[in-house]
Amino acid sequence: MLVIRIKFLFIALAISASQSGLDDTPTKKPPTMAEVIKASQPSDWHPLDPQNTLYLELDLGQSKSSRVVIELAPAFAPNHVANIKALVRENYFDGLAILRSQDNYVVQWGDPNAEAKPGDKEQPRAIKNAKRALGAEFTVAAKDVLPFTRLPDVDGYAPQTGFVGDFASARDPKSGRAWLTHCYGVVGVGRDLDENSGGGAELYTVIGHAPRWLDRNITTVGRVVQGIELLSVLPRGTGALGFYEKPEQRVALKRVRLAADVPESERTNLEELRTDTPTFAALIESRRNRRDEWYKVPAGHIDVCGVPIPVRPIGAASR
Amino acid sequence: MLVIRIKFLFIALAISASQSGLDDTPTKKPPTMAEVIKASQPSDWHPLDPQNTLYLELDLGQSKSSRVVIELAPAFAPNHVANIKALVRENYFDGLAILRSQDNYVVQWGDPNAEAKPGDKEQPRAIKNAKRALGAEFTVAAKDVLPFTRLPDVDGYAPQTGFVGDFASARDPKSGRAWLTHCYGVVGVGRDLDENSGGGAELYTVIGHAPRWLDRNITTVGRVVQGIELLSVLPRGTGALGFYEKPEQRVALKRVRLAADVPESERTNLEELRTDTPTFAALIESRRNRRDEWYKVPAGHIDVCGVPIPVRPIGAASR
Repeated sequence: MLVIRIKFLFIALAISASQSGLDDTPTKKPPTMAEVIKASQPSDWHPLDPQNTLYLELDLGQSKSSRVVIELAPAFAPNHVANIKALVRENYFDGLAILRSQDNYVVQWGDPNAEAKPGDKEQPRAIKNAKRALGAEFTVAAKDVLPFTRLPDVDGYAPQTGFVGDFASARDPKSGRAWLTHCYGVVGVGRDLDENSGGGAELYTVIGHAPRWLDRNITTVGRVVQGIELLSVLPRGTGALGFYEKPEQRVALKRVRLAADVPESERTNLEELRTDTPTFAALIESRRNRRDEWYKVPAGHIDVCGVPIPVRPIGAASR
Repeated sequence: MLVIRIKFLFIALAISASQSGLDDTPTKKPPTMAEVIKASQPSDWHPLDPQNTLYLELDLGQSKSSRVVIELAPAFAPNHVANIKALVRENYFDGLAILRSQDNYVVQWGDPNAEAKPGDKEQPRAIKNAKRALGAEFTVAAKDVLPFTRLPDVDGYAPQTGFVGDFASARDPKSGRAWLTHCYGVVGVGRDLDENSGGGAELYTVIGHAPRWLDRNITTVGRVVQGIELLSVLPRGTGALGFYEKPEQRVALKRVRLAADVPESERTNLEELRTDTPTFAALIESRRNRRDEWYKVPAGHIDVCGVPIPVRPIGAASR
């Protein structure tokens, strides 16, 4: 029964946003997000690719959980993702730190001594094989990032928004360009004023309301898929832009590893709901019009940063 | 000079969003937000009203700062605001606790024993003069909340968005209703399935991407104007919906007071930028198209939750 409903929804969504309107008769009531996920099939999910998954291990002392899992998006920033993987493989990040936590904005990590001058006691961490700076990859050709599951609703920041692979994204048919949208948990590459000054040695993630005005102004390389609550609760820095003012305020990065380089027994095995499926289309609709009994007025709209992309441990569904 | 620019901007904004386009000649470059604030006049600001300001004092141990300042919005929920003030004045909240911290969503506070049954060892906190539940105030008549400084850009969740007093809000000319938008820091009234089941004894604030799908589904009563970073960094609860599972995980509320009831010497004296001024119109434009040198592609858009309403200590400008 639920499968039929989902198919119905998918068609409705494809035809027109306005036609997917409210229907209060219980038998035809579209599913809630929980129902969509419960009815999903194994084929609706895919495991994370260990070659494009990072483990950020924080030094949180006695805390049991200290791993932040980041999924990289090579299709949206091929050179930066390759460079970040090269940095990780030369252990560049190990022992570096969280530098900045700005409320309702970003948490950023990298080298506390990146700005040191020659002669200073502490010198910047050396980069061996990777590059310190790369040409900007703010956008990519839209034709290279397909399929695109488009949202039916208007977005103020981009002509079109939707999903490519495991990522919220936007595109502009006029320019033929596509980019990742700055939603909660997106990971980007810190840079200076020069647009080509970033390389991936300093990264940030969004921990507040989606700062979509950053879209197309900075290279984005992925998103946090698990453990962002370890970053989002870090005390806010009291310096300008939320930078920590004293070294002891910074949480250290114990190590950063590519999942593929970690023994299988130590990996965090996750799967994500595919975004190019009727199941995900039904999930979008469940967010456009919340059917949970608690809601009295369905919004009839969802913004691209309001659609969660479900992630779960592999095997969780059968437990 | 700056005043002239601001005026020009205000007119441009009022006529049409598209006419406020980019102008790269430095002499005519519109001001950044920092420049707008720097050029503001004392008359652009107003002090918070002590009769509609709450101080939430958290029990954070040795931490120096433990005060969260909330500005109430009586125009948008007169009965709930009156009831919350009555609860505060009978010391209802003192010794209660933060019950819930859900990542990218809300932090909620109230009575840990609210759900206790007769005979349970711990009983719900008694309410003396205030009411436990009130009729919903999800929206108000738009004609009663004026002036409305409207944003020029499209919003997917509401026909119109903008600012009323010190609050981000939306309205629908068809229904003639207005409401506060669920932006970061908004304060709302927890309720059960019944829309008339909330009264203000349990409150929440948004600590993530604006959950605008809550708009018109719950009574909103104000916003956090200072100290939200004390709430947003609280460890996320591990129970369903981010509720804390063990009593010792909850941060206690030492006390909640109306600013008017606190000796003047102990008040946090803040002022806010008026939203019905040319200065605020210029601020909006500075957010629609970021002119800071760092930005390469101005968005040409701002969503209602992306406009900060500046707050500062009274006297800060002259220091």
